[in-house]
Amino acid sequence: MTAKLKVTVWNEFRHEQHNEKVRSVYPGGIHAAIGEGLAGTADVAYATLDQDEEHGLSESRLAETDVLIWWGHMAHGDVKDEIVERVKRRVLQGMGLIVLHSGHFSKIFKTLMGTSCDLKWREADEKERLWVVSPGHPIAEGIGEYIELPQEEMYGEHFDIPQPDELVFVSWFEGGEVFRSGCTFHRGQGKIFYFRPGHETYPTYYNEQVRTVIRNAVKWAAPTRRDYPTYGNHKPLEAIGNKA
Amino acid sequence: MTAKLKVTVWNEFRHEQHNEKVRSVYPGGIHAAIGEGLAGTADVAYATLDQDEEHGLSESRLAETDVLIWWGHMAHGDVKDEIVERVKRRVLQGMGLIVLHSGHFSKIFKTLMGTSCDLKWREADEKERLWVVSPGHPIAEGIGEYIELPQEEMYGEHFDIPQPDELVFVSWFEGGEVFRSGCTFHRGQGKIFYFRPGHETYPTYYNEQVRTVIRNAVKWAAPTRRDYPTYGNHKPLEAIGNKA
Amino acid sequence: MTAKLKVTVWNEFRHEQHNEKVRSVYPGGIHAAIGEGLAGTADVAYATLDQDEEHGLSESRLAETDVLIWWGHMAHGDVKDEIVERVKRRVLQGMGLIVLHSGHFSKIFKTLMGTSCDLKWREADEKERLWVVSPGHPIAEGIGEYIELPQEEMYGEHFDIPQPDELVFVSWFEGGEVFRSGCTFHRGQGKIFYFRPGHETYPTYYNEQVRTVIRNAVKWAAPTRRDYPTYGNHKPLEAIGNKA
Amino acid sequence: MTAKLKVTVWNEFRHEQHNEKVRSVYPGGIHAAIGEGLAGTADVAYATLDQDEEHGLSESRLAETDVLIWWGHMAHGDVKDEIVERVKRRVLQGMGLIVLHSGHFSKIFKTLMGTSCDLKWREADEKERLWVVSPGHPIAEGIGEYIELPQEEMYGEHFDIPQPDELVFVSWFEGGEVFRSGCTFHRGQGKIFYFRPGHETYPTYYNEQVRTVIRNAVKWAAPTRRDYPTYGNHKPLEAIGNKA
Repeated sequence: MTAKLKVTVWNEFRHEQHNEKVRSVYPGGIHAAIGEGLAGTADVAYATLDQDEEHGLSESRLAETDVLIWWGHMAHGDVKDEIVERVKRRVLQGMGLIVLHSGHFSKIFKTLMGTSCDLKWREADEKERLWVVSPGHPIAEGIGEYIELPQEEMYGEHFDIPQPDELVFVSWFEGGEVFRSGCTFHRGQGKIFYFRPGHETYPTYYNEQVRTVIRNAVKWAAPTRRDYPTYGNHKPLEAIGNKA
Repeated sequence: MTAKLKVTVWNEFRHEQHNEKVRSVYPGGIHAAIGEGLAGTADVAYATLDQDEEHGLSESRLAETDVLIWWGHMAHGDVKDEIVERVKRRVLQGMGLIVLHSGHFSKIFKTLMGTSCDLKWREADEKERLWVVSPGHPIAEGIGEYIELPQEEMYGEHFDIPQPDELVFVSWFEGGEVFRSGCTFHRGQGKIFYFRPGHETYPTYYNEQVRTVIRNAVKWAAPTRRDYPTYGNHKPLEAIGNKA
Repeated sequence: MTAKLKVTVWNEFRHEQHNEKVRSVYPGGIHAAIGEGLAGTADVAYATLDQDEEHGLSESRLAETDVLIWWGHMAHGDVKDEIVERVKRRVLQGMGLIVLHSGHFSKIFKTLMGTSCDLKWREADEKERLWVVSPGHPIAEGIGEYIELPQEEMYGEHFDIPQPDELVFVSWFEGGEVFRSGCTFHRGQGKIFYFRPGHETYPTYYNEQVRTVIRNAVKWAAPTRRDYPTYGNHKPLEAIGNKA
Repeated sequence: MTAKLKVTVWNEFRHEQHNEKVRSVYPGGIHAAIGEGLAGTADVAYATLDQDEEHGLSESRLAETDVLIWWGHMAHGDVKDEIVERVKRRVLQGMGLIVLHSGHFSKIFKTLMGTSCDLKWREADEKERLWVVSPGHPIAEGIGEYIELPQEEMYGEHFDIPQPDELVFVSWFEGGEVFRSGCTFHRGQGKIFYFRPGHETYPTYYNEQVRTVIRNAVKWAAPTRRDYPTYGNHKPLEAIGNKA
């Protein structure tokens, strides 16, 4: 626990280059704002879709990553299947994964969930209030009864995910919808947290409470140190055929 | 499955006698409105707090009950502990239990949950919208994407219950809160469904969708027919001490 | 509930043709033995891997299927990806799916789980005892405290699946292992039950208790009748921008 | 995270005084052996049933306790109800609770679970093997695929508890039974871990792997630092009655 966690923040990083409004909110890219919130908690590295042929997610980079944070939106289809498989393998082996906002439709999240991950959405500058429904969960540490975001994109139920292992936040939206906005899942030896807020045109990742949640989630998703299970043919541990 | 389910609707039945407004909404008592919604689905019996020394919940009545529905509010403290223990025993043995609205604070619900079952509340004639978050759950059969109630009491998170085994509905309230309003739990061999709506001054139990949910819940909570497990000292099924 | 459920039993049907021992146990194929156990409960159809170019799983066949039962083992790789996608789509839309034994490694189960679905295994003619751990679950109806199978293949933990929504059976094996052998999952609007026993060289699917479990599972997995949720852009249900 | 966790180990401490065999295994009491295993991880205090009128669990002692460990067996009935209520209140407020072995029948565990907590048992010096079924859970950190205890009391299913939030260990017993032997639960703001092994006549609490599990569980159950939720009447956060 003494060594700092190694976090890689992955960002598609396309909106920021093509859209003036997004660039004005996140001049260094969404990843930089997310990483800034982790200063002091983790050793942060960055990777982006167009960085190299592997989207910055080489085997060695992933091998050195305790927790991977994923933000993507308009270019999910450009992420190579082999890289998705590589990330999935690492999650099953124990790497933590935090999927943010529109990452709900990323290949990596959909393949780990096994469902469509579809939802309702609307861009209407409306208020979101994320209520804590699991007050003892470590991801809610330091958070009040709710987080209020003055303007966000709406995501509404039904959210087509498996039943979360733990439901930490439920969102209220001004326009009349609700959403399971903080959800944990376990896949293999890895831990996954989906956290809803963070549309590219709002300064959500500068919000101190949102940053606290992501910091908490990084700690929660840290790998459990133990050998990976053995699978396949297994010799008996007890004699077979001894009868009472 | 051919024999009709036997349902007992238990109602505190105090508000209706002391409050003109409540009586005008539920002239026959809340229990009558609930039971009316089950016509054709179940053989319905009624029991009320002041009915006799056992609140209408004799051993024989409970023995003949497949599913018990519970509505109480102002007189939770008047329910005798021995009757609560009796109901609990029957639930653990397999009787279904549907707890409605202010029944969240009943002795029977609190003892089965192990928590305070506390929540936020407000009476402000506000709109509630119950969203289906488990679309494949049998309790949601025949229900659209949400149920809208024009006026209800607000219940807000945090709702101090154990994590539900399945979360079927989440409520949106006009005043800014959310609530886990349809929750399943298993205790012993019995199934429990908590369903939020039903403040005594609103005609909620005449609403067709609310009635459909309660009908579905009765079917879902029906006892599983099998022998009660055996507990206590148990002889080995295999020889002990044979070594490989 | 009055109309019989429509069940399609899908079997790889290769072992029975290439292996004398398997054929002697299941002369009509494993699917016939499974279907026989459903007589009176469901309208049963059959489909097999080599039946036609679609493995007997045409769009129309699936559209007429309430619950699909899946047995496969040596030829998982021969199941076409497009057929797997088709089955998955139907599950998300509400078709029940019961995956048996070696089906744990089928493409359809792995894609719905999002994990490797790997496990330990051994063929040693050893005893299995499946203990009921959810005594109120409808899949355990009519089952005693455990099902004992005198000879079965061993499957041992760790079983690399997501945490089941409900754990119904846990197996004890003579050689020293345990296994979560009856597990439910929800994906989209569909219900999934994984049930462990059924190695091709043992007469497991003639066992009356095993047949009872599969019958119960068919009823449990029956589709919930309701419209499929709508997804995508959604107009507000409430005015946005009204302030208190 | 820098300050050491404050752990109170509560032990009934009766067997050790009345039974020579138990005393020979645990000359300082079971609590001392448990506390020894936490050296370096936590600041450990002890409390026992006959210590004073409050069983060593005064308000101030509990207020200073982050995680309470509970071992009891023959004298569950001697624990005063008011002390049980006090401990429960502290758990709901966030104190962690680790219930060991025969503590399954303690008043505090039963009231937090809401079920009978009954099980099958047998004292036959038999082998227990606890398999890890949640390989990514922090309570399994540093643990191999299973923990083998050469001699233990048997506990068998059905174990009458609510479905655990997470199932970490499942036990295999030589005599033919299985048991959910490592289970997590959340109640209010508190976290609870039930861990099966530890009959008073075996040196289980000197076992290094058992000690690792308890150390991990202490860290996992540590209180989440945040304000306790507010309950009761709640003013609206949004205007009510504004219509679209």
